Amino acid sequence: MDKAISRFPVPALDELPEDVRHRILAVQEKAGFVPNVFLTLAHRPDEFRAFFAYHDALMEKDSGLSKAEREMIVVTTSGANQCQYCVVAHGAILRVRAKNPLIADQVAVNYRKADITARQSAMLDFALKVSLHAQEVGDADFSVLREHGFADQDIWDIGAVAAFFAMSNRLANMTSMRPNDEFFLMGRTAMS
Amino acid sequence: MDKAISRFPVPALDELPEDVRHRILAVQEKAGFVPNVFLTLAHRPDEFRAFFAYHDALMEKDSGLSKAEREMIVVTTSGANQCQYCVVAHGAILRVRAKNPLIADQVAVNYRKADITARQSAMLDFALKVSLHAQEVGDADFSVLREHGFADQDIWDIGAVAAFFAMSNRLANMTSMRPNDEFFLMGRTAMS
Amino acid sequence: MDKAISRFPVPALDELPEDVRHRILAVQEKAGFVPNVFLTLAHRPDEFRAFFAYHDALMEKDSGLSKAEREMIVVTTSGANQCQYCVVAHGAILRVRAKNPLIADQVAVNYRKADITARQSAMLDFALKVSLHAQEVGDADFSVLREHGFADQDIWDIGAVAAFFAMSNRLANMTSMRPNDEFFLMGRTAMS
Amino acid sequence: MDKAISRFPVPALDELPEDVRHRILAVQEKAGFVPNVFLTLAHRPDEFRAFFAYHDALMEKDSGLSKAEREMIVVTTSGANQCQYCVVAHGAILRVRAKNPLIADQVAVNYRKADITARQSAMLDFALKVSLHAQEVGDADFSVLREHGFADQDIWDIGAVAAFFAMSNRLANMTSMRPNDEFFLMGRTAMS
Amino acid sequence: MDKAISRFPVPALDELPEDVRHRILAVQEKAGFVPNVFLTLAHRPDEFRAFFAYHDALMEKDSGLSKAEREMIVVTTSGANQCQYCVVAHGAILRVRAKNPLIADQVAVNYRKADITARQSAMLDFALKVSLHAQEVGDADFSVLREHGFADQDIWDIGAVAAFFAMSNRLANMTSMRPNDEFFLMGRTAMS
Amino acid sequence: MDKAISRFPVPALDELPEDVRHRILAVQEKAGFVPNVFLTLAHRPDEFRAFFAYHDALMEKDSGLSKAEREMIVVTTSGANQCQYCVVAHGAILRVRAKNPLIADQVAVNYRKADITARQSAMLDFALKVSLHAQEVGDADFSVLREHGFADQDIWDIGAVAAFFAMSNRLANMTSMRPNDEFFLMGRTAMS
Repeated sequence: MDKAISRFPVPALDELPEDVRHRILAVQEKAGFVPNVFLTLAHRPDEFRAFFAYHDALMEKDSGLSKAEREMIVVTTSGANQCQYCVVAHGAILRVRAKNPLIADQVAVNYRKADITARQSAMLDFALKVSLHAQEVGDADFSVLREHGFADQDIWDIGAVAAFFAMSNRLANMTSMRPNDEFFLMGRTAMS
Repeated sequence: MDKAISRFPVPALDELPEDVRHRILAVQEKAGFVPNVFLTLAHRPDEFRAFFAYHDALMEKDSGLSKAEREMIVVTTSGANQCQYCVVAHGAILRVRAKNPLIADQVAVNYRKADITARQSAMLDFALKVSLHAQEVGDADFSVLREHGFADQDIWDIGAVAAFFAMSNRLANMTSMRPNDEFFLMGRTAMS
Repeated sequence: MDKAISRFPVPALDELPEDVRHRILAVQEKAGFVPNVFLTLAHRPDEFRAFFAYHDALMEKDSGLSKAEREMIVVTTSGANQCQYCVVAHGAILRVRAKNPLIADQVAVNYRKADITARQSAMLDFALKVSLHAQEVGDADFSVLREHGFADQDIWDIGAVAAFFAMSNRLANMTSMRPNDEFFLMGRTAMS
Repeated sequence: MDKAISRFPVPALDELPEDVRHRILAVQEKAGFVPNVFLTLAHRPDEFRAFFAYHDALMEKDSGLSKAEREMIVVTTSGANQCQYCVVAHGAILRVRAKNPLIADQVAVNYRKADITARQSAMLDFALKVSLHAQEVGDADFSVLREHGFADQDIWDIGAVAAFFAMSNRLANMTSMRPNDEFFLMGRTAMS
Repeated sequence: MDKAISRFPVPALDELPEDVRHRILAVQEKAGFVPNVFLTLAHRPDEFRAFFAYHDALMEKDSGLSKAEREMIVVTTSGANQCQYCVVAHGAILRVRAKNPLIADQVAVNYRKADITARQSAMLDFALKVSLHAQEVGDADFSVLREHGFADQDIWDIGAVAAFFAMSNRLANMTSMRPNDEFFLMGRTAMS
Repeated sequence: MDKAISRFPVPALDELPEDVRHRILAVQEKAGFVPNVFLTLAHRPDEFRAFFAYHDALMEKDSGLSKAEREMIVVTTSGANQCQYCVVAHGAILRVRAKNPLIADQVAVNYRKADITARQSAMLDFALKVSLHAQEVGDADFSVLREHGFADQDIWDIGAVAAFFAMSNRLANMTSMRPNDEFFLMGRTAMS
């Protein structure tokens, strides 16, 4: 059984550029461990920097979508793309952000049966369409979202998060990126 | 948010035939709660009896496959069929039987990245082929399994478990069967 | 050319448990031959018993669906799953029960062009959705069926028959179960 | 129930150009009835002429493939394309030409379980690839066929028949062309 | 790198039957070169004659669809079928006939984003349905087209062009027919 | 006919942050026009910065893949994802970088018929697998690429370019990003 983090080289921390090492130490400080996505991308510092700058621009900023809703998009689309790293790692973050120990497993498998609102269901319909059939997105999709109260900037956020994780899912599957054991149990005991 | 157990009627225990009620009380005694599949099927006693007789004939008997391996087949194929009930409920059973808190989430999302043996990987390849493309099963598939040491009776077991849960997944999705909250956390803390 | 009944062992009648042999002799008495599904499952008596108990609970009982309509569901979904045994054997039963020599070939290939009512067409739409995309079944599907006059218990029957034959189709394809030659011609001459 | 021959106009025989009427009367003389494909295409005489010229060039000429083998290709690919007219009408012709009452239903549902030779199985593998995924045809496909003894002109015939019926299947489904009742029973009683 | 015109024999002009040679010389006179489809089909004179008779009956005659619209159908469906010859050669013809240097690349990749009218978009929706899912064509599809002003004879033309090129695409992919270099640049400079 | 650049707001240049405006003016200086991707992303400066930083890290740096080969990956995968902007814009760049006016249309439609080497064909096989079925990537895929002489860092580049454009394709399709007219003709006349 192969428990490697990645098919590609994982550099030691002291071989990394200052800013990359700093970023990794900061996340370790906060989370208590280093999520493997940081280690997997580290041997490509320019891609590392762009990846996390993009990630933070979408996932950390203010938005008409809550942070938990953005994580719902990540887990739902990553489930559809069979990306183990993203489902497990972002599933943990979703449980924590939604303070709901059930929601991640629900949307990862079939969001149509999840404990979500009709508005969130419409959000995930669109996110999955962008993830799986973006070529078919049309004006009618935007109308449905506007009827659910989404502003156009919110619609961009839904689609951009789905698009970013379309990339992430492929990177994780190509590299066979292994989710840290810690993620599997995070956020499971604080029953909402 | 709809937290109903099923789209269809769920009878009270005292309305049920004696043997059905007995079976439900026995599982409640053992598990500490009644898994919703028992309640969802209860209004159809003949189907209830046949379903669990079939289930037990496949999942409880002696076999060249361990009970944990049979649950792996269930969770893997149910993930492919997006069956929330089966992934969550049998994911719990798999964690318990394998004494492994990670395995269920791994195979539910992408068994190709799971901590399993080459033999188990071949087993799941075949199970998924039966689940998703049974019309293409051919002699070459049997040869691969035999090379991994599976006897023909084991191959039957792999295929029959995949076929039985092809049915179960459809019943659960048709009825919108809700997994009990208890399943989500079961077996997550006993690190192997 | 291989005309074996099954890839797996087919026991002689006198090696079988009493009840299994009795069931097989009864069907032979009635049909004039033993349909190969009985012989294919016979080496697994517990599965044999559960399979036919389940089958009879769905296909033989009173229902809001006629027996011919239930066979239509079988033939239509088995065609979609490319299950030669089920299309040929249940096609014969459908012709006999519907007293219609054309209907089985029509629905096996493309039910949208079959000589059926709008109500039956809605029934087959739902059956195929359960068979092929059960994860997408939603409340709107139930509304359509209710508009066509189906009670909820009828909807269960449609979905449960589709689900049971999702299993049967996979068993038949895994075992390479051969339809008896007799089925091909049954019910073809009594023009309705 | 709509038993129309076609969604489009079907002219009376005496409204047709001389050569078209002649062709139709000739087939009626030979078969005892007029197959509906002749009536469906008749209102477009130029297309009628080109269609049957093409058909005859592929299906009636001498070839390294027997006429029965060419009909096998038609029935197999038409089954995959869910074309009721072509499966039923050419299924009848296949039974007659192969003098085998079982073969048409076998290949229409799943040619992998049909009573055919390994060479015919390779022929149908290629025909289905041309029918369903022609963009993926490559040199390796030609090598497999040559190993089974097919000359390049035979390979053209396999692919050209599959391609021609890719067109026919679409015309029949677009027009909702109804197979004549006569076809369903033809060739079913002469056991080979 | 293989720049062969076809996987199959390409006869010299003076080996061809008179009418076939005449047709080829006529197109060469008009276009300035011989499109490779003529050379690829030439070793099968009967198929050559039927193919071009059919082609001309659909593409050259008067119709409720303009010649440019018919070429739009060809390029759109050939893009979906990944047929390099048809996209490149008919893309050139479309640019010339529409006097629009952009339209061919637009519809070949994604007609939903092309500079076309709502009526043309409905036309291409139907053409793609015939090309990719003809078995699902139903009365509702005809209603949509009629609402856009298409007569039934126009609908036939849309579907028949899509069906004919379903055949052509498969022939071109099977033969690995190479588009002439001349097509790539034709019609690209006359900005509309 | 809608010739808007994007479904979302496109800010005026003087409303943009200094660095974003500077980047846009620089590309305009070099190309003679502003590719619409810069204008479409400009209203989200943080995402704009991350997107182009990522793009340049993959597409502009030294690599075992030539710049033309990286553009081949872009055009091939964007064709599969039906992304009009990326096929047209990167098709132009590919023609220029490869000094080959045919290559872009060839790989956009069907790279299996393109004038490329066996090594490039293996590269595109892998790129498409990452783009369309990344969950199925396995060790065998890496072995094939190594046999064609690709180093592991080259394999990362192939997969990362495919992954990045999986994101870009979805953004372009979600926003309905319009390719500039200039791209359609670029690089078409310098015959190699």
